[in-house]
Amino acid sequence: MKNKPLILITNDDGVKSGGISALIEAVRPYGDLLVVAPDSSKSGMSHAMTVKVPLYLSQVSQEEGLTIYKSNGTPADCVKMALGEILDKKPDYVLSGINHGTNSSISAFYSGTVAGAREGAFNSIPSIAFSLCDYNLDADFSEAANICRQIFLSVLENGMKPNDYFNVNIPKGDLVKEIKICRHAKGKWVEQFDKRKDPYERSYYWLTGYFENSEKEATDTDEWALNNGFASLVPCSIDATYHNRLKEMKDSFRFL
Amino acid sequence: MKNKPLILITNDDGVKSGGISALIEAVRPYGDLLVVAPDSSKSGMSHAMTVKVPLYLSQVSQEEGLTIYKSNGTPADCVKMALGEILDKKPDYVLSGINHGTNSSISAFYSGTVAGAREGAFNSIPSIAFSLCDYNLDADFSEAANICRQIFLSVLENGMKPNDYFNVNIPKGDLVKEIKICRHAKGKWVEQFDKRKDPYERSYYWLTGYFENSEKEATDTDEWALNNGFASLVPCSIDATYHNRLKEMKDSFRFL
Repeated sequence: MKNKPLILITNDDGVKSGGISALIEAVRPYGDLLVVAPDSSKSGMSHAMTVKVPLYLSQVSQEEGLTIYKSNGTPADCVKMALGEILDKKPDYVLSGINHGTNSSISAFYSGTVAGAREGAFNSIPSIAFSLCDYNLDADFSEAANICRQIFLSVLENGMKPNDYFNVNIPKGDLVKEIKICRHAKGKWVEQFDKRKDPYERSYYWLTGYFENSEKEATDTDEWALNNGFASLVPCSIDATYHNRLKEMKDSFRFL
Repeated sequence: MKNKPLILITNDDGVKSGGISALIEAVRPYGDLLVVAPDSSKSGMSHAMTVKVPLYLSQVSQEEGLTIYKSNGTPADCVKMALGEILDKKPDYVLSGINHGTNSSISAFYSGTVAGAREGAFNSIPSIAFSLCDYNLDADFSEAANICRQIFLSVLENGMKPNDYFNVNIPKGDLVKEIKICRHAKGKWVEQFDKRKDPYERSYYWLTGYFENSEKEATDTDEWALNNGFASLVPCSIDATYHNRLKEMKDSFRFL
């Protein structure tokens, strides 16, 4: 068991989801695994953390090389609890997913799965979020699991930097061409609301909408990769500063 | 009334909080205001959006130049509802806050207030998040409101770019030195959990902890500014890609 990396795994679809099982199986031969995942779906929870209600944590199972906990918290909470309560040493990697559904472009900001990886990076642990572009509850994760394994093995070989976190999206289908290192596509969600009446005659709304890629011609984006049969890997930053704009503003704004 | 900018205001502490009232009063002379804010506190909700329960929206009040709505959604939901359901034209600005508590450095990622501004930027609306570094429920927002007004007037004069969003933090106290354009400090939250027993003998945890600035010597960060009596303004990016790392990785990783 010596020299095997310690891998912390989380997700946002919950500890019982098919996606997290596929990720566990994909990397299990290469490390000791600690899974700490939400006890129910936390989709769309972004980087939320739980401060208004207390957190519970319970062990689900323990076997050679694989220990599983669940918590009522968000993916970010799960990583925090693993680091602060369960582990006495820092894991070598945080892996999050495999998410049921796409987290490319700005969707990464809404995603609990991506936040799980970002929380790892905040703690200087190389981290990767994996998402499969398939919302079907019965989605087949076998090819996605192959891609996860391939990326993880490449990471073991090439190394990651402590604050690295990668956002990986995998197209559905059983033949992914290759893995393409990309940037986030610029785009936006066009909001639409499905307006209904509840039994008490009050209006209520379901959020729907569609993603609009504002640079369809660019071939170096995650959206392009996914639409052309590639898996996309975007190296992300935990520094939200827009550095070019900062330099520019120092000249134009009447502040210090 | 003509030529007055249309300003959409949201926050994460809720429509009745002292901070949002202070922001409304600060900018009211300079625009027509639409407020759409959560009906209760959504602190720490980050960029979460509501997909599992329906959203409600109701008008709280309407007077000359100021219309107020509340919703059960998150700050991001509130901005989406304003754009998708209430308004028939795009607002000129989205302002979010004033938050009760600090949102500097990586705390910006956990913040619902900052997400409100980011959601504006996703929609190509210049947006600003304001936070006061005071968690006291009776915090005095008068100096913070002055800073908000000063920044907003400077923005009216200098212009913002469509995808600009600024993360502004204001130190507590009644004499803020000046406004300093900064970058996010590198740092992390050191997690601590306050472990207790519930009446049924189950362990539960309250998340606590403290922020550790990992570059205390640097004088160009928001943390330095706030610790030295300045308000900090960080121009932020909606592109999460780590571009320098992307170039580097294309050489070292065995992917496309």
